[in-house]
Amino acid sequence: MKFKVTDLDISTGGTLVAVLNHKDATMLDLHTGDRLHITRGRKSAVAVLDIAESSKAVKPGRIGLMEEVIRKVGAKNSCVVNVNLDKKPKSIALIRKKLEGKTLSDDDLFTIIEDIVKNKLTSVEITYFVAAGFTRGFNLVETVSLTKAMINTGDVLKVGGYPIVDKHCIGGVAGNRTTMVVVPILIAAGYCVPKTSSRSITSPAGTSDTMEVLCDVELDVKSIKKVVDKVGGCMVWGGAVNLAPADDKIITVEHPLSVDAEGQLLASILAKKGSVSATHILVDIPVGRGAKVSSMMKARRLKGLFIKVGKKLGMKIRVIITDGSEPIGNGIGPSLEARDVLWVLSNDSNAPKDLRRKSLMMAAEIMRAYPLSDWKSKHGYRYAKSILDSGKAMEVMQSIIKKQGARITSVDKIKLGKISFDVKSAGKGKIVRIDNKSISRIAKVAGAPFDKGAGIYLHHHVGDQVDKGDTIFTIYAENKQKMSYAKEFMKQYDGIVIR
Amino acid sequence: MKFKVTDLDISTGGTLVAVLNHKDATMLDLHTGDRLHITRGRKSAVAVLDIAESSKAVKPGRIGLMEEVIRKVGAKNSCVVNVNLDKKPKSIALIRKKLEGKTLSDDDLFTIIEDIVKNKLTSVEITYFVAAGFTRGFNLVETVSLTKAMINTGDVLKVGGYPIVDKHCIGGVAGNRTTMVVVPILIAAGYCVPKTSSRSITSPAGTSDTMEVLCDVELDVKSIKKVVDKVGGCMVWGGAVNLAPADDKIITVEHPLSVDAEGQLLASILAKKGSVSATHILVDIPVGRGAKVSSMMKARRLKGLFIKVGKKLGMKIRVIITDGSEPIGNGIGPSLEARDVLWVLSNDSNAPKDLRRKSLMMAAEIMRAYPLSDWKSKHGYRYAKSILDSGKAMEVMQSIIKKQGARITSVDKIKLGKISFDVKSAGKGKIVRIDNKSISRIAKVAGAPFDKGAGIYLHHHVGDQVDKGDTIFTIYAENKQKMSYAKEFMKQYDGIVIR
Repeated sequence: MKFKVTDLDISTGGTLVAVLNHKDATMLDLHTGDRLHITRGRKSAVAVLDIAESSKAVKPGRIGLMEEVIRKVGAKNSCVVNVNLDKKPKSIALIRKKLEGKTLSDDDLFTIIEDIVKNKLTSVEITYFVAAGFTRGFNLVETVSLTKAMINTGDVLKVGGYPIVDKHCIGGVAGNRTTMVVVPILIAAGYCVPKTSSRSITSPAGTSDTMEVLCDVELDVKSIKKVVDKVGGCMVWGGAVNLAPADDKIITVEHPLSVDAEGQLLASILAKKGSVSATHILVDIPVGRGAKVSSMMKARRLKGLFIKVGKKLGMKIRVIITDGSEPIGNGIGPSLEARDVLWVLSNDSNAPKDLRRKSLMMAAEIMRAYPLSDWKSKHGYRYAKSILDSGKAMEVMQSIIKKQGARITSVDKIKLGKISFDVKSAGKGKIVRIDNKSISRIAKVAGAPFDKGAGIYLHHHVGDQVDKGDTIFTIYAENKQKMSYAKEFMKQYDGIVIR
Repeated sequence: MKFKVTDLDISTGGTLVAVLNHKDATMLDLHTGDRLHITRGRKSAVAVLDIAESSKAVKPGRIGLMEEVIRKVGAKNSCVVNVNLDKKPKSIALIRKKLEGKTLSDDDLFTIIEDIVKNKLTSVEITYFVAAGFTRGFNLVETVSLTKAMINTGDVLKVGGYPIVDKHCIGGVAGNRTTMVVVPILIAAGYCVPKTSSRSITSPAGTSDTMEVLCDVELDVKSIKKVVDKVGGCMVWGGAVNLAPADDKIITVEHPLSVDAEGQLLASILAKKGSVSATHILVDIPVGRGAKVSSMMKARRLKGLFIKVGKKLGMKIRVIITDGSEPIGNGIGPSLEARDVLWVLSNDSNAPKDLRRKSLMMAAEIMRAYPLSDWKSKHGYRYAKSILDSGKAMEVMQSIIKKQGARITSVDKIKLGKISFDVKSAGKGKIVRIDNKSISRIAKVAGAPFDKGAGIYLHHHVGDQVDKGDTIFTIYAENKQKMSYAKEFMKQYDGIVIR
């Protein structure tokens, strides 16, 4: 059937969409979500049908095309294209199968994940997949298949060296930049650590945002390999490379209802590890108010699942459950966190003790779990400490920064926000709680992570005694407006409790 | 927080949508699907947030508004609006509750359905509701609550008379215009029948499309009442009035995966009946190849559910399971079906026997199930036949047509498509099958239901012996192009099997 093109001048960034008037759709027995094969000359595209009820958007006889489709078929406004009904992706029947409570095979899950990655499914269809996984659950075999599918529908980084070590933190704790301390210690000890991290999703800074203060983090696969081969590891942004890309698309529909099936969560995390060929992994599950995992019971359950699924994937996984009830480190925001990290690595007196302690503990945990020699396994903590104290970890960090296009190499070059504001205690007492969510929120309103220098510096931690007028924390922002927003937000939240 | 408006010049027709640049969204800790309260002067609107990754669509500092929001807050391009985070609708937590497998209360279901009707939920959120209902199932109490919620979130038609009778056909059978014969018979017998019908959704004609050939069907509630009070019943389009409006919005997200939870199906049907205050109902479940219900087992299960749910709603429900394997009547398409109906009502020799028989059987079924007197209950079929044969049913039909703004009152005034084409038998044999879906599809491609005169006239039915060259059916269309489309489609389908 032939239709004249109406250029809708809209871009979806995801699924290809074409719009028909409801009269044409009825005549052709077409429904929202049907797939149309659109051809112009030798170029063609498959788009998802949307139906316009009024003639204002798309008149009968016309087909409205979004930018991506226009480009793909080389169409212009009012040119004629050929339109045929295409089969729906096979994955739709498979999603329905899961919705009906049946088990999906390895092939089934690969088909679904591949169609998600290739933008062949609509958000409504992906939602059915997420809902099916949540209500019916994924068994162990399915979770393994899902993980493999997520790995194999993207690029896989292959580097030399063994064991290839990775760490993951379930998240939700402000500050907590242990990765940037642990990775240099492990590399100095002889492990291969090709670390990819995320940027901030809901926090004032992800590891990549913080690392970016010091050097480039958007490297392609080839450059990553070069750095890893030279230094023994790297710290880059996973989003710049096509590693396990399905995750981002699934997260978008999970968010509205905060739906995250355990199988889905495990697969997402382990796929990212598998995509860098990691063989030995440490998973940190912080538990506590404001952290992502709030109960010990859920943390223990997750721990068991990680180990079981890892085994089937041929990954060695060690899981630690840590205290996630308050921020780790003093700085919150990219530059402030980068400063904390460099202070720790250079054994500066300003180094936040909790960040140093947690990083050493984690490095030691990995060394004990996956020993490179007998002595090191028995004395993990002392060995990790010796590497940090000797300055060897800092040396490794400097090499990584240099190989990744250094921006800043010493602490005193780190610039904080132009404007600062001290928040003082209204009375005398003991700090009994510092809430992760509230503190994170203020840092974000002040401009983090986009304004690198913005954020919060905590002068005190839980348990400290403070007098009236003592500065509890300092807010940094790049301009007055953002500072005023931060102050406004502060009034609404009681993030720090003093009694 | 203040933002400058970017007029997106798009209309969604449903949920109100506002778009922020991803930098602003991160700073404000906002996510896709969050609700924004947008104010300009005294006008305000709550919109669902969408996030633009590039600055092309919406720049930082700007808020992109769709047409409906622009109108609601009285904004113009580049004017400043105030934006605050609004609470998510309570229904979202309730949908999650159902997704977790918990039972929803009467109030819970009302809240969800009300938010759907008020366009407060996104398609992803409604999809979670549908998926939850499908995977977790609705129990009897929930189904009743769902039905009541669907009734009470729209208008309810209140008319005089008792019993108020309604009929419903699960659908999928071509032709099958029994309603337009049954309703006049029942009204002539003394029942009150305020009949609302649908327009075509997937068929070449709905009852309303066919009735519209003869008179107006888009009446408001006040006019409907007038007609019912005068004549004892009516035949109007349910879509013109706000009766149980939730259904349409739910159907949109059900379609992509053909998900229809039984509880949902029952609630949709019975809500439409409840919204006209029906007290006594006949449900027709045609079973057979190509019909909506394909197995006898599913039909029997549905029958049991209808009776149970009806009881709890205080409705008397009678369910009949009929043969849905081939079309009923000879005409398929609005004018052709209207002609069949008038032929039956006027006892014309051209009247299709199967339509007459099924209509009489259904009228009799209702009379026996819900007798107005002893005699009539025992002799339902004979009584229905006497009304039809005496011309009383035709008299009632003429009154309805007159009261609903008559267009055509006699058969010979009905205009069929300007062009016709006879499809002839290629050989000698017996017709063993006429497929509903294929025949419907050809009629639609020929222009039905939008071209009232378009469609198909069947000269033969299953079981008939035909010779080579005999006309099996005639296609009617309004122009050459549509006729050529219909012929093209015919080649691909073997709707009629002769052996």
